[in-house]
Amino acid sequence: MSARLFSFAAGDQGSWTVTAQEAVTGESLPAARALSVLSGPARADEYRWTLRGITSNERYVERVERDVLVAKQQGLGRPQSTRAVLIPIRKNVEWWALTQDERRAVFESRSKHIEIGARYLPTIARRLHHCRDLSPDEPFDFLTWFEFAPADESAFDNLLTELRASEEWRYVDREVEIRLTRASV
Amino acid sequence: MSARLFSFAAGDQGSWTVTAQEAVTGESLPAARALSVLSGPARADEYRWTLRGITSNERYVERVERDVLVAKQQGLGRPQSTRAVLIPIRKNVEWWALTQDERRAVFESRSKHIEIGARYLPTIARRLHHCRDLSPDEPFDFLTWFEFAPADESAFDNLLTELRASEEWRYVDREVEIRLTRASV
Repeated sequence: MSARLFSFAAGDQGSWTVTAQEAVTGESLPAARALSVLSGPARADEYRWTLRGITSNERYVERVERDVLVAKQQGLGRPQSTRAVLIPIRKNVEWWALTQDERRAVFESRSKHIEIGARYLPTIARRLHHCRDLSPDEPFDFLTWFEFAPADESAFDNLLTELRASEEWRYVDREVEIRLTRASV
Repeated sequence: MSARLFSFAAGDQGSWTVTAQEAVTGESLPAARALSVLSGPARADEYRWTLRGITSNERYVERVERDVLVAKQQGLGRPQSTRAVLIPIRKNVEWWALTQDERRAVFESRSKHIEIGARYLPTIARRLHHCRDLSPDEPFDFLTWFEFAPADESAFDNLLTELRASEEWRYVDREVEIRLTRASV
């Protein structure tokens, strides 16, 4: 069960080297040279910063959509996936005050979040981590981790462009983008 | 924001006196004489046991339903509400593997959870706390806290009977019921 909690720990050394960091919306994070993805909690005093998130049940995906996703998706850790991107996101109070049907309508009916994501499978592998209900004081609501091969970076850029143009993204009030390359061993 | 996290702390003394405790499904909790409801975290070493939960966005309620609920419901802490019940619940892996549309179908279309609850408003006041995403190791998924006047205890019993007879309750694999009376000051 503990495999649900993951920590992203930034510092001078780590399994992924930071190649770029951008504050897309709102406040950035302190710059760091490297990032490690840890299963379980991280000791905050050993790193420049840490973020944590927990994998959970899906909040919007319906049965037909999940069947499509499961048939197409591939896991993290593929040898050719030497590029990764961490995108921490926070949504505003207006989003969280919507009811389930209203959020679903923005998320998929009008923003096509699932449909857009599915189009980039299996090229882009991804894991979504929820933060909002870990405590009342988390700096982000979601941490999404993406992995892909170097040749697929432009496809990933297109995915980001599509999602950021969606109605759903009007509710995003903080977003940081951290690009990474797998550190040589 | 910290007002989202609540702790239920059991011991020899507290603002609510335990009048009955029943293990409805699965393992019980250690018996205690009293319970306190605390805003924020509790020091575990000061109590017989503590449970914690966080209020969050609704997972199933739709706009029309919320409007009905908001029009009818009343808050916790009413002077006449000298009876309370804490019901910690855990749902099984089968529940959490369902997609959103499947969970909504069981929750409302077939089990009428929202409709049943709404019928007992404003008599029964309630606050739902989520535990599942606080950490991977929480003993329960939800803690529901109910408050009502002594004369409304039979109405509350009926509410419980209706919900426990629903299809949704087939997914409950641990449930404890703790009945309380407000301690005299």
